[in-house]
Amino acid sequence: MSKFGLYNKFMTKEGKRDELVGILLEAAASMEQVTDCEIYSVNVSDNEPESVWVYEVWSSAGAHQASLSLEGAAALIGRAMPLIAGVERIHTLTPVGGKGIS
Amino acid sequence: MSKFGLYNKFMTKEGKRDELVGILLEAAASMEQVTDCEIYSVNVSDNEPESVWVYEVWSSAGAHQASLSLEGAAALIGRAMPLIAGVERIHTLTPVGGKGIS
Repeated sequence: MSKFGLYNKFMTKEGKRDELVGILLEAAASMEQVTDCEIYSVNVSDNEPESVWVYEVWSSAGAHQASLSLEGAAALIGRAMPLIAGVERIHTLTPVGGKGIS
Repeated sequence: MSKFGLYNKFMTKEGKRDELVGILLEAAASMEQVTDCEIYSVNVSDNEPESVWVYEVWSSAGAHQASLSLEGAAALIGRAMPLIAGVERIHTLTPVGGKGIS
């Protein structure tokens, strides 16, 4: 079964980027015990100060889908939504290997 | 000092994707002992069968720059170049944390 990779961009409402980064880092921390989640990397860029990029690697698309209904996920999503002006799925990928990937 | 993130797209010459994936996985393997390299993830996509995406996280921009002159890097680059039709630096990022990042 192929691994499942995502590269998403979150555009935030003005001045809300760092607050969203905090929530996404909480989401990443909640994945520490979720072995199906191999990478959940939160990134910013000086070029676009109101955006956050998240790169994720999952054991499968199903595992990613299931994670959206894990305990606490809804609460995190609920806290994040008011900060978000838009979300762009830049790429859906198939991670084939490399450093950081099992 | 900020970590340094890269998200690059390699467009390959026709039929050369898997060969390039192999070389990029060799590059990733060569990073196993390079502690400054935290993530070197090689990805493909069904949507674009002649492209390869690499997401990297480094301890710093300088560490990434230095890696280009590591032993073996030039040989790998030399083997990869004839396979590549183009390279697109999609994003230069500042990884702020998450699962898979120290």
